[in-house]
Amino acid sequence: MTYLCDNIGKNTEGHLTFAGLDTVELAKAFGTPLYLLDENKIRAHCKAFRSAFETLFPAGSLPLYAGKANAFTGLYKILKEEGMGIDVVSPGELYLANRAAFDLSHTFFHGNNKTDADIDYAMELGVGYFVADNLEEIEAIEEIAAKRNIKQKVLLRLTPGIDPHTYEAVNTGRVDSKFGSAIATGQADEITALTLQKEHIELCGFHCHVGSQVFYEDVFERALDVMLDFAAKVRDTLGFTASMLDLGGGFGVPYTEKDPKIDPIERLASIAERFHKTCKALFFPEPAFFMEPGRSIVADAGMTLYTVGSVKEIPGYKTYVSVDGGMADNPRYALYRSPYTCLVANKQNEAHEKLVTVAGRCCESGDLIQENVPLPASTKKGDLLAVCTTGAYNDSMASDYNKLLRPPIVLIKNKIPRLALRRGRFEDLVGREG
Amino acid sequence: MTYLCDNIGKNTEGHLTFAGLDTVELAKAFGTPLYLLDENKIRAHCKAFRSAFETLFPAGSLPLYAGKANAFTGLYKILKEEGMGIDVVSPGELYLANRAAFDLSHTFFHGNNKTDADIDYAMELGVGYFVADNLEEIEAIEEIAAKRNIKQKVLLRLTPGIDPHTYEAVNTGRVDSKFGSAIATGQADEITALTLQKEHIELCGFHCHVGSQVFYEDVFERALDVMLDFAAKVRDTLGFTASMLDLGGGFGVPYTEKDPKIDPIERLASIAERFHKTCKALFFPEPAFFMEPGRSIVADAGMTLYTVGSVKEIPGYKTYVSVDGGMADNPRYALYRSPYTCLVANKQNEAHEKLVTVAGRCCESGDLIQENVPLPASTKKGDLLAVCTTGAYNDSMASDYNKLLRPPIVLIKNKIPRLALRRGRFEDLVGREG
Repeated sequence: MTYLCDNIGKNTEGHLTFAGLDTVELAKAFGTPLYLLDENKIRAHCKAFRSAFETLFPAGSLPLYAGKANAFTGLYKILKEEGMGIDVVSPGELYLANRAAFDLSHTFFHGNNKTDADIDYAMELGVGYFVADNLEEIEAIEEIAAKRNIKQKVLLRLTPGIDPHTYEAVNTGRVDSKFGSAIATGQADEITALTLQKEHIELCGFHCHVGSQVFYEDVFERALDVMLDFAAKVRDTLGFTASMLDLGGGFGVPYTEKDPKIDPIERLASIAERFHKTCKALFFPEPAFFMEPGRSIVADAGMTLYTVGSVKEIPGYKTYVSVDGGMADNPRYALYRSPYTCLVANKQNEAHEKLVTVAGRCCESGDLIQENVPLPASTKKGDLLAVCTTGAYNDSMASDYNKLLRPPIVLIKNKIPRLALRRGRFEDLVGREG
Repeated sequence: MTYLCDNIGKNTEGHLTFAGLDTVELAKAFGTPLYLLDENKIRAHCKAFRSAFETLFPAGSLPLYAGKANAFTGLYKILKEEGMGIDVVSPGELYLANRAAFDLSHTFFHGNNKTDADIDYAMELGVGYFVADNLEEIEAIEEIAAKRNIKQKVLLRLTPGIDPHTYEAVNTGRVDSKFGSAIATGQADEITALTLQKEHIELCGFHCHVGSQVFYEDVFERALDVMLDFAAKVRDTLGFTASMLDLGGGFGVPYTEKDPKIDPIERLASIAERFHKTCKALFFPEPAFFMEPGRSIVADAGMTLYTVGSVKEIPGYKTYVSVDGGMADNPRYALYRSPYTCLVANKQNEAHEKLVTVAGRCCESGDLIQENVPLPASTKKGDLLAVCTTGAYNDSMASDYNKLLRPPIVLIKNKIPRLALRRGRFEDLVGREG
């Protein structure tokens, strides 16, 4: 049996291993539900991105980890040690990064609706760059920077009008976004001209984000062309030459064997080739280049372990395998019907051939982890169910719906597990009751 | 202008009022995003349910508040004062009810996957009834009750095979559920027979839940018939006469003017009529009757206030109004495309005629509060946006996605606002970091 990622395996007892450790033993030691994070895998991804950026792009280029995928103080410490930049989307993420003593001058602050208080807080902490979304934000940044008597570095978020999941050159629907200013409608020119007039803003360049789970080959290249074309046009019309270009995130990560497997590092080489070529063709001085991997840094570094509580076969219909977690710790199936690979961790010597629905424990029909996944026919109460590739958008999207307690995160480094976030406690549920 | 619920109004300044208070002043006093809860409305709903149950059903009948809709200690105190029973779905909800000194003998413990630890904890607290979902749970209850040398009262959750949203008498798809034991497949008989053999279990009756947001006229009546038929059959075949029948929750609540308006109390009268009639026809002694209103107790007692941060008109496409909350505090649009009524609270004298998309502040395209809702054409940064009917499944489903801080809940009683849950703080984000 081959596994989805090289940090997953099987030992002589037929138990699933993750990051070199027996998952059955991990579940015994830390209980379930349990998030595991493979620190070595996270570091390896960071090193690969960092090295590719150093080799392929101009000085000053940097990969920025997108904290919305997963964020806690210990993770920001790892990112800091690996020399990553970061993007943050809220004061909360800034707070965590600052708590990890992360150098915030390498921080890009995103969001379609930063409040004035957010802007003020970010400036107080000395955040490197605002990725400004809209006209109101530019006015607010100018006003608050003026009060603080600083000149704030800013990138502008633009909408290049590219659909990440089709081959249409410009899918006009993609102009319809809550984020950024559309190039196609002229609004990108408008906000650029406005920003250049602001005394307390230093416009550095442009940002775009074409989407998530991008597998199509040349989506980033096409976005690059649109963005560089726009930058060249702005140079010619407004006399502003962007020194920074941020192409956002979106590298696709495989969740099942059916998903395409792309190597972000190979993709970066292709993106770099286009970058150099297009800059040359446009006679545009190469700007520092940024991308924002989140999922591709942490997704396959994660695994969730659950205990099976009940197996319910409804003759003629379906078999439900219920586990001790669900949409509260992983809402992605409920939200997006996201695919996942499920494995019975203590039965890796048994064929996974019986199609079942893995249900969560929330009192809600839609609380499913996955439908039509193959598990061993012998699956029963007490078995350990592993869900792979849960390092991104699981803990970060988790709720305490049904007043379920949050699972802990155990970081595994060189086969040593360490509790990074403890399990939720009843007292956590009343923290806001004062 | 008429409003969705009689606790919403407009004052002479053209400001939206809620529970008799000016929402603009509430936002100033408590900040945004802000959950409001109308305590008088909650109490009025409880009183109406309690009174209907007393009048219409046999002694011992009781409405049970479904805590998954909204649960915090202060709310359980209100429910206790109003003489409601409750249903809980987790140890966390039990903890909160117990913290409010709620009489747990009037508590029904639900869930498709209670762990052995959950069962033990619930027995420790003296929970009144387990609504047992499956065979594994019956075995676990028996074993743990035996250890504790108690006899645990139990209801069995059954699947009556009724679709709540169609008129098909039996939609077989509804047999396909992660919850309960299907009557149609014979599994309900099987679990009943097994349960009756258990020395430490006292079987009291049966439970079913046909679905949420039920508006069709006779869904509950049909479920009642199926359940009473089953109870009569079990009496004849197994010699067990159920003394309790719990028909679950699901009364539909209108979220927009387009939704049907049903009066749960009128519906109860019709359900009671069928109850008496069917029991009589089956020569079945009337069991104590229970239902589990959650949404219909708290939904229209709630309102959320947001501040508008940006209005983005994309010519030829759409206008986005971005607010300072979103799917982190109200994931229902992202999860279910749930409809909501949105109003600009400080502009109630202006026509709401411009169709816009209300977007949240999370860095995710799917983070929308509502699409195609009419707001004033003048809507701009700084305006106060009210979302109606958010008392159920908003705070209870909330996350800290994007590390956004949780909004406070302000309870309003007799026009006096009181902070029930304080606003989230940065420190809340690191509570599990230890």
